[in-house]
Parts: sequence; structure tokens; C-alpha cells
Amino acid sequence: MLGRYLERIDAELERAVRGPDIPLYTMARYQLGQVEADGSPASADRGKAVRPTLCLLMCEALGGDLEAALPAAAGLELLHNFTLVHDDVMDDDETRRHRPTVWVVWGRPQAIDAGDLLHVLATLSVLRSGRNGASAPLARDATEVVMQGCRLVTEGQHLDLAFETAAQVGVADYLDMISRKSAALLAVAFELGAIFAGNDPATRTACRDYGRHVGIVFQIRDDMLGIWGDPAVTGKPVGADIQKRKKTLPILHALETAAEPDRTRLRAMFGDNETPPDVETTMAILKRAGSQSFTRDRIHDHATRASQALARLPVNPWGRRNLEAVAAYIATRDR
Amino acid sequence: MLGRYLERIDAELERAVRGPDIPLYTMARYQLGQVEADGSPASADRGKAVRPTLCLLMCEALGGDLEAALPAAAGLELLHNFTLVHDDVMDDDETRRHRPTVWVVWGRPQAIDAGDLLHVLATLSVLRSGRNGASAPLARDATEVVMQGCRLVTEGQHLDLAFETAAQVGVADYLDMISRKSAALLAVAFELGAIFAGNDPATRTACRDYGRHVGIVFQIRDDMLGIWGDPAVTGKPVGADIQKRKKTLPILHALETAAEPDRTRLRAMFGDNETPPDVETTMAILKRAGSQSFTRDRIHDHATRASQALARLPVNPWGRRNLEAVAAYIATRDR
Repeated sequence: MLGRYLERIDAELERAVRGPDIPLYTMARYQLGQVEADGSPASADRGKAVRPTLCLLMCEALGGDLEAALPAAAGLELLHNFTLVHDDVMDDDETRRHRPTVWVVWGRPQAIDAGDLLHVLATLSVLRSGRNGASAPLARDATEVVMQGCRLVTEGQHLDLAFETAAQVGVADYLDMISRKSAALLAVAFELGAIFAGNDPATRTACRDYGRHVGIVFQIRDDMLGIWGDPAVTGKPVGADIQKRKKTLPILHALETAAEPDRTRLRAMFGDNETPPDVETTMAILKRAGSQSFTRDRIHDHATRASQALARLPVNPWGRRNLEAVAAYIATRDR
Repeated sequence: MLGRYLERIDAELERAVRGPDIPLYTMARYQLGQVEADGSPASADRGKAVRPTLCLLMCEALGGDLEAALPAAAGLELLHNFTLVHDDVMDDDETRRHRPTVWVVWGRPQAIDAGDLLHVLATLSVLRSGRNGASAPLARDATEVVMQGCRLVTEGQHLDLAFETAAQVGVADYLDMISRKSAALLAVAFELGAIFAGNDPATRTACRDYGRHVGIVFQIRDDMLGIWGDPAVTGKPVGADIQKRKKTLPILHALETAAEPDRTRLRAMFGDNETPPDVETTMAILKRAGSQSFTRDRIHDHATRASQALARLPVNPWGRRNLEAVAAYIATRDR
């Protein structure tokens, strides 16, 4: 399934980043995995273009116009990559997909500018969706939906940065943050599919709900794997996120609800000090606080709500099967 | 003239940056001069909103629909401010309009994110122009024009950053850079005016030409004032840009065309060394190379082309008078 639209998406992305022969466009193509830093064709993996694929899957499931949706779908990938380029600058991350990040290769000022270019190319690509047979109202609606999603991602990134220095972050704050930072673009992906399949308001709402819950499940599953994932499958050490002092959902739950003296102990370990938290001690505290089952329940809760939204969708049997499989995979994946 | 639409523009800008009660929106409002860093109402100057004003002036001159154009006009101001926030991070600038820049107050990561928010709010504002009576095709066309302009600005910023480390930058490279970085948004401002005044292709082209040439004149006049401006009027020291080693048009002309030994001397002074160039020596070299009259000729040249474009425009007499005054002011201003 994940490869079904990849060739068309790649071709559309190639078109979207054409421009004058200046290094700025090489940076954009490098980020997308199309070229190496010197501009030569890339040998590396281009990525799976998950968001455009899910957009087109929903569109096809609803009997929509794939050609009309394609530039908007590609725009999602450009937008996602704009956020990655800027996030890497903000978080000082030096590696992405096994390659140096854009700012490591070209410096921070140029990387900020390259992110800005990807942002505007994303908008232009979505706007073009009105030219391939779809009408101007559809192009306008699509652009508005993508930009409202982009706005939520920007808010989510702000909250995520603010949490790093916040005295206390609650479970509710965290869920609000990931619903913006992680889930908003998935909600947009599915809603876009509905726009190019009749643009019915109720269908759009159901798509958005489905995508938002699937997106939250994705992030929480990520949080679980960061603590309880099998190192042989994830390729990461046991309790990887604990060592990085990441305040993910299970940790925040324990910080909020663990009994004493566990709570004080955990706060001390995850506070500002030099030694990373002890993985075994943290795991034991999480177990006593019931944080794993709390986290699992949240996944179950949002997966159920995703199913309920999907049930409301007038998708064809092929589409329903695939959308059910997507949700199930995301909730249970091991890496 | 500059105050004619300011109240309406300010009200539209207030609307455009409404959002959840998180510091991210305070950053955006601070950049726009609406509030102080602590969120209290700003006492400082809000800025003149030059781009929205010129957009609405052109729209009114062409007998267009000001209410329909207003959200697009406000979008230009948001877009301009997004580029300022990011430019200040890229250039390490600590002060803007007599206040600390956003990154100085909130740190670089949050400032990058605040710039991203202003970028997406700009797009959303332009898209809204389709809701105030104008039709979806106008909103789509307006958004496309603004985003193509934004793309040029991003390219111009890339070139400007690249010039800092380039071995040699020619006069032609420089003119190409400023036509993107400085002139593109002015061209967009006037073209937007035409979109909401009948959307005639020939009128749009003439507006774009007028704006581009006016924008180039603006930047070159800025370059002149940075070297030959009257300190009593500009508030800057004699030869301010020389001391900052800024490679503006007159300097690039002399670097390209001055006779020996002036050329070698100038290169040494503007190359990588610790003492700033000597202002008197540089001025003398510029005089011998004819760089001031070369620069003045470029202003005259682009001002003439702006006039020619204006002559093609079906504007009313009131509008023609004002647009002529705008071009004349920009070409001859003393600060």
C-alpha cells in the first residue's frame, strides 16, 4: 500500500522544487532526499512520503480525483520537510535519515532560509491543485486547510520548546501539544483527500477526526517504544528516551500520579542535573504508578475514536480495509 | 497619504494575529508593534504599513474593491514581518525599531517559530480576501501572487547571505539580488491592488513592473544615502555603510571598474581584515571611478521605467497624482 502512489508523488515533488540554479534549491532537494549535498543524484532512501500517501489513499477510498489531489498531497510532504529543517536548527540535531542535517552542511542562516523556501513551495504546490481540473474554490479550501494545519504545527512546536524549560508539564498539556505538533498534519492529509472527493462538510469532519486520533495514537505509540521497545527491533538501546530525559507521556503520568517517595525520586532524576536518569529505577517507578497501562489505555481510547470516525466515512470496501489496516498498524507497530 | 488606510489596516492586522493565549502570539504581536514583550499595549510606533498602504492606494486608483483587498494587504505586512524576524536571527541583529529583536527577547528557537507563525498567518490572511465579497478565483490568484513574491524574497535572502562569503560579486548579481529581496514584495503589493480592481492581466503586468522598478529605486537610493547621506538628516555617521564594509551598489561598481591602483586598494580595504575601510579614501576612489553618477543613473533609469509602467495604467487622476508622488519621493528622499 505504502508504495501505491510513490512514483506519482516523487514526480510531483520533483516538479515542485524546480527553480533557478542556486544552492538554495539544492538544499531543498537534499532535504527531500532527491540529491546529495553536492547536487548529484541521491543514493539514499527518499522516505516514504507517508502524508501524501495517506491523503491519496483517503481520496481514492472516497472515489475522488487523484490527479486533482496530487499537488496538494505533495505540498504536505514539502510542508513536513520545512518543519523538519527548522526543527533541526531549533533542536541542534545534527543527523536526519543517516545524513547530516541541512544546517550542518550549509550553516544555520541558510538552513532557516531553506526551510522558508520549502514552506512557500508547499503553499504554491497546494494552490496548483486548482489547476489540474479542480476548481478555484477547491484550491482555496485545500490551501486554507493545509495552512490551518501548519498553524497548529507551529503552535505545537512552540509548546514543545516551552515545555523544555517549564517547571511542570501535565498530561493534559502534553496531549494538547502532540495533537498540534504531531496529529495536525495527519488530520489535514485525510481531510484533503475528502476535499478532492466531493468536498462534503460531514465527510471532511470525519476525515479530520480520524486523522487526528490516528496521529495521536502514532505519537503515543512512539512514546511507548521509546521506553519499552525491543532494542533488537527498534535499533535503540533499552529505555532510550529515559536516558535522553525525554518527558514523554508515561513519564509525565508518573510525575503526576506516582506515590511518594517514587514521585520525588522521579522528579529529581528528570530535573536539571548531570547524570541521566537510571533506566531500571525509572522503569520500576513507571510500573508501580501504572503508567504503562495508562499509556496503553490512551492508545486504545484514541484508536477507538479513530474507528468511530472511520465508521462514519462513505468509503468503498477496498478503502475501508486499507484505512483499518493503517490504524491497526500505527497502534501496534514495534518500531 | 501614508495614513489614509492605516486604521483599517491596523484593525485587520489585530484580527489576523488572534489566537490561543500562548506566548507565541505575543511574539507575533510584539514584532508588529502591537504590544510590549510582556503583552501590555505598546507605546511605541507601529510602523507605517507601507506595503498594505501602497496596495490599497493602487486598488483605489484603479477603482477597485478596498474591502476585498484589505485582508490581502494586511497579509503583505505579516509576510514582511516574518522575513524581518528571520533576517534578524540570520544576521544576528539585536535591535529593530529601537526595541530588542524577537530572538533577543525569546531566544533563537522560539524566534524561528514565531517567524513561521507570521508566515502562515500571512497566507491565511490573503486567503481570507476571498471571503469579503471577492470570489474564490481572486483569493487563489492573490495567494499565488503573494507566495510567488515570497519565493523571490527567499531567493534574494539566500543570494544576500551567499554574497557575504563570495570571492567576487558583480553589479549585475547585486541588481538581481535586490530585485528579489527588496523589490519583489513591492511589485506584489501593486499587483494585488490590480487583482481586486478587475484582475485584468495587462493591468497586473503594468502594476508589477511599476512596483519592481520603484522597489529597485528604493534600495539603490538607500545605498546612496548609506554613503553620501547627510548625517544631520539620516541620523547616521558620514559614510555609515563604508564603515560597516557593506558591499552596496556604488562599492561594487568601483570594485568592478576603478582604475589601478584604486581597485587593488579598495579590494584590500573591503576584503577580510580587521580595520574598517577608511571613509575619506573610499569616497575619493568612488569619485574617481564615477560610481556616484553610475548609481544616480541607475536610479534615473529605473524611475523612468516605473513612470513608463504607470503611464500604461488606467488609474484615475487622483491615483496618478499619488502614484507619481510615491515614485518621486522614493527616488529623491533624504532619509
